[in-house]
Amino acid sequence: VHTRHRVVAIMPREQQVVVDDLDGGGERRESYDRLLIACGALPVRPALEGIDSDGIHQVNSFGGGLRLRELLDRQSPQRVVVVGGGYIGVEMAEALHQRGLPVTLVQRPAQLMSTLDAEMAEAFAEYLTRAGVTLRLGEAVQGFTSQNGRVSGVVTDQGTIAGDLVILGLGVTPNSALARAAGIPLGVRESIRVNQRQETETANIWAAGDCAESHHLISGRAVHLALGTVANKQGRVAGINLADGEASFPGVLGTAITKFMEGECSRSGLSERELQELGWEYVTATVDGHTLPRYYPGSAPIRVKVLAAKGTGRLLGVQIVGGPGSAKRIDTAAVALQAGLTLEELLYLDLSYAPPFSGVWDPLVIAARLALKET
Amino acid sequence: VHTRHRVVAIMPREQQVVVDDLDGGGERRESYDRLLIACGALPVRPALEGIDSDGIHQVNSFGGGLRLRELLDRQSPQRVVVVGGGYIGVEMAEALHQRGLPVTLVQRPAQLMSTLDAEMAEAFAEYLTRAGVTLRLGEAVQGFTSQNGRVSGVVTDQGTIAGDLVILGLGVTPNSALARAAGIPLGVRESIRVNQRQETETANIWAAGDCAESHHLISGRAVHLALGTVANKQGRVAGINLADGEASFPGVLGTAITKFMEGECSRSGLSERELQELGWEYVTATVDGHTLPRYYPGSAPIRVKVLAAKGTGRLLGVQIVGGPGSAKRIDTAAVALQAGLTLEELLYLDLSYAPPFSGVWDPLVIAARLALKET
Repeated sequence: VHTRHRVVAIMPREQQVVVDDLDGGGERRESYDRLLIACGALPVRPALEGIDSDGIHQVNSFGGGLRLRELLDRQSPQRVVVVGGGYIGVEMAEALHQRGLPVTLVQRPAQLMSTLDAEMAEAFAEYLTRAGVTLRLGEAVQGFTSQNGRVSGVVTDQGTIAGDLVILGLGVTPNSALARAAGIPLGVRESIRVNQRQETETANIWAAGDCAESHHLISGRAVHLALGTVANKQGRVAGINLADGEASFPGVLGTAITKFMEGECSRSGLSERELQELGWEYVTATVDGHTLPRYYPGSAPIRVKVLAAKGTGRLLGVQIVGGPGSAKRIDTAAVALQAGLTLEELLYLDLSYAPPFSGVWDPLVIAARLALKET
Repeated sequence: VHTRHRVVAIMPREQQVVVDDLDGGGERRESYDRLLIACGALPVRPALEGIDSDGIHQVNSFGGGLRLRELLDRQSPQRVVVVGGGYIGVEMAEALHQRGLPVTLVQRPAQLMSTLDAEMAEAFAEYLTRAGVTLRLGEAVQGFTSQNGRVSGVVTDQGTIAGDLVILGLGVTPNSALARAAGIPLGVRESIRVNQRQETETANIWAAGDCAESHHLISGRAVHLALGTVANKQGRVAGINLADGEASFPGVLGTAITKFMEGECSRSGLSERELQELGWEYVTATVDGHTLPRYYPGSAPIRVKVLAAKGTGRLLGVQIVGGPGSAKRIDTAAVALQAGLTLEELLYLDLSYAPPFSGVWDPLVIAARLALKET
């Protein structure tokens, strides 16, 4: 039976960690042969006035989710303000909208879902506005007002938004403080630098999950992606190698997916913004189609955008926005990206067709055909 | 304004076709520079006693579908017998079951859906039996009884099945009679032999669609697949080449998909039977999982089977059976098959994950992991 411990320092030279016994046993040292750092990520929490008021929630842990649900059941808040329009912000907006609460989503960036290109993000944002969510984009949060210690509003550079429940969805940063203090080299956005075996640059120390760097399969650059799929794969690779096995994590495409009610969106590979940052020449094509033949019940709009290398036609990225049944199709694109397929090769993919499932030409294939003309 | 014509002969040496003016103008010859044969396929219609009785329907054309619906509306049949348990048979069984009719499906083969492996087909068959469809498998149809010219039953080697509406879904054969008569070389199952440009072996004559052969991307063999996706792609390639363009059809994986009510199935690549016919050594693994995390509303069972080459681990085939949201995932496998990926490469696919869409490890990836142990 274990007491509760917290690691407070890593000493790579001594191959020891300093642990604090949280049940009062004080600090002591523990030796290791091999060490895995899997500290995850911490939610961004800016030091804004009033941020510690009651009713301001983060939902980055199971306990945090339970506390929020308890508050919803017990205190029946009347107006919700979600701060941040990424995956967490959108998913919390959906959950609270589904409970019948009026939701305002506010953020500094002018574009919801920064991992999508602007016109795709706008198409997705329409699902939120149509459902009645108030979007306040391009509006910087500066603090919070409160009454009797309880939040009453969100102060921005454009006014005050009334709200008695505030959800913060401002992203995460790698929890790499222990590694940094131990002199373990960090990489992108302070995430722990690792190789494809999940080894850090310090002997006998591995890192995996939201605290660690990843290799981007298309750009070839190091990236930090705090996603469950990446964390699971990195953990598997680290575990195998720690146990004297042989495993290698090839890298990531940044595949991601979310929804708001009927609206779905997903992406894989590089976006226009990322390609511009790399200075790569690219072509794009966007197709508006339907998930199923239009005559078939349940047919929904789907917009597919492809990005490919100018010249070679190598697929570089795909984004999807649409109704039910749209977004999961990104997996087809993710395999094509991982396999390094070109637009030409996409044209003759043998994808499944039957009216309850799709049209005879997949929108991805149609988009590839259009983009091919631009290469 | 054109009159209606039917081509009754092709004369490759003269580069002419003989056309019959169906409005009484008689036969005449027409010259061609290039000729495309796109005659499609004909439904199999065995010469069984009573097969021409009223109430025995094929649904291989738009008109045939309309006639059937008219009969359903007008004559209100009471008991349906579907002969044949392939895609058409299953889809017609669904359509008639949805109209509230009791359906019996009878066929000689012991296994429904012959393009699936036995245990996958059995899992799919359960969706039909659970819905109340009577499956009579391994029972050979020998003829039909009738009363006043109208079908009253299906006679088999095991008795007579009462029914006042019979649907024949016995597959199709390439409509290659004109080509054969003209001496154009035929291939598999009498389909017209073509190269990747859709050229037949006779000068200036192309063929595309259900009448033409295809190249199988995994087996490397010629196959005949009467599927809409294949026909569309072949037609595009033939059209480009006929117009002096350059296009090449790489081939097919035999990707196919269908459903019966809540039950879905799909396949791509080679099945165990096909691999055994080729004499290839292979490994398989089957995983029973869920389309979504089990706690998420709408989560349904999904079974994924992968087949891969013994030794190299190259993916050879994938089959899926499950509830809503299962079968379309075959597209992920189809791209992996087309790109020639190995089981090892499948392990680290960057597929999308969020609870409304999937679990964190895709069943395809889990199956690949299990199969890898067998290679």
